[in-house]
Amino acid sequence: MKNGIENGYYHEITPQGFGLVIKAKDVLYSQTSPYQKIEIFNSDSMLGRVLTIDDLMMVTEGDEYHYHEMIAHIPMMQHPCPKTVLVIGGGDGGTVREVLKHKTVEKVTLCEIDEKVIEASKEFLPTVSCELDNPKVDIQVGDAIEFIKDKKNEYDIILIDSTDPMGPGEGLFTDEFYTNIKNALKKGGIMAAQTESPVTNQKEIKKIYEQLHRVFPIVAPYTSNMPTYPGGYWAWVFCSVDVKPLEYYNDERAAYIVPTCKIYNKEYHNARFALPNYLKEIV
Amino acid sequence: MKNGIENGYYHEITPQGFGLVIKAKDVLYSQTSPYQKIEIFNSDSMLGRVLTIDDLMMVTEGDEYHYHEMIAHIPMMQHPCPKTVLVIGGGDGGTVREVLKHKTVEKVTLCEIDEKVIEASKEFLPTVSCELDNPKVDIQVGDAIEFIKDKKNEYDIILIDSTDPMGPGEGLFTDEFYTNIKNALKKGGIMAAQTESPVTNQKEIKKIYEQLHRVFPIVAPYTSNMPTYPGGYWAWVFCSVDVKPLEYYNDERAAYIVPTCKIYNKEYHNARFALPNYLKEIV
Repeated sequence: MKNGIENGYYHEITPQGFGLVIKAKDVLYSQTSPYQKIEIFNSDSMLGRVLTIDDLMMVTEGDEYHYHEMIAHIPMMQHPCPKTVLVIGGGDGGTVREVLKHKTVEKVTLCEIDEKVIEASKEFLPTVSCELDNPKVDIQVGDAIEFIKDKKNEYDIILIDSTDPMGPGEGLFTDEFYTNIKNALKKGGIMAAQTESPVTNQKEIKKIYEQLHRVFPIVAPYTSNMPTYPGGYWAWVFCSVDVKPLEYYNDERAAYIVPTCKIYNKEYHNARFALPNYLKEIV
Repeated sequence: MKNGIENGYYHEITPQGFGLVIKAKDVLYSQTSPYQKIEIFNSDSMLGRVLTIDDLMMVTEGDEYHYHEMIAHIPMMQHPCPKTVLVIGGGDGGTVREVLKHKTVEKVTLCEIDEKVIEASKEFLPTVSCELDNPKVDIQVGDAIEFIKDKKNEYDIILIDSTDPMGPGEGLFTDEFYTNIKNALKKGGIMAAQTESPVTNQKEIKKIYEQLHRVFPIVAPYTSNMPTYPGGYWAWVFCSVDVKPLEYYNDERAAYIVPTCKIYNKEYHNARFALPNYLKEIV
């Protein structure tokens, strides 16, 4: 069985032999960019519309907040006053939408390599892409590897909302790239990144965390449920030179962020850093 | 597409329109008992052998510990000295295996309605059923609704490891049954039960928690990742008349339990009770 849509069902099976099936009603968008195949289909399910890249699950309208709230608010709430934010990847706009809930933010730069992801999301995923036209957002279509090279001391928060390390996103998982990210952070800055499924990507996770530990003095993995990603469970990382996780939290800011969220609250935030034994062993 | 095995794949799609697919190599066991259809197949996946009941996922060798460690150790570690334990359902033996890791336990009663589940698990799931022949285990084949009726003040811990409320397990989700459980608990006793998927069973969860609140003064939901259950996320409940969650924890006992576990540790335990906003609203 191949990944992708056939006979009214989308299938995505991991190399480990199990995966996800979704009823697929109609394909709304299907294009191949210079980088990848992008599809959006209307699922006949609680997930609503679904964005896939190279027949791998990226975003569903029905569960995207599980991912976007975690990649954005965990680092944002641990910075006393995040003003400048860089989002790498994330052309669907979900991470930018969550970042802009923080009133301190003056500018969000979105560096996405594939403008077709942005176009498709603007047209077919309005609840996800809704803030991409916000005047605080500066969209830079281009390769983040090049974009970050000459940036020094520019961002309070950098969020790596990339695809998997086994494809076009590969260059975003290297010592060199992480070092450039570190240099682009201001004092007190925080990087967060998606770091794959603890259930099905243990080999990749081990490699990513070995790299991160070589670059950042502070590396703190955190996890949460993500229904449509492999294993229903996802890991992100909080990295910094000078900020420890759970060191700072502003209850006043939480008071306006939490009511806008379907998942995020303070207790849930703190609990994200408690890991199962099998994951502690590999990170 | 129907749930079950066809053309080398097991499919299980929720009424919400999405679900699980697993490569299925061969069927090792397939029988219909007076209660249900029981199948065990060898998956061509990291999940190993898989037990299904009425074409719904029950247990896989590859991820069962995600479930069994949570239903057992969360309540067991919050009791100062659990000696007598009742497990309702759970004929596969996984919950009994985890309970018996606690050296204080003198007797575990397993009340399973369907002896074919026990037989099949003993033959085909040895890593799960391995403690069912332990002399501390008293297996009672029968209906827990009848079994519990005349029990008063007998158990330190009662674990309801049932199937879903939409089938033969329905009678295990009623005010009357929970009241009988409450009466069967000793002073300081704790009940824990599986309470379905926060992602796909919100209607059922709301009803279950309304019932529990009518019966128990202390009702504390907790959640964890469960890769092969709908949404990859599962809820259990901690209920008691006189014990609050996180009130008691014995580090000495944890010191011999944690090294035997793939998931369970103290920080992870405490973090289980932090819930996402959408779930807080319905429990």
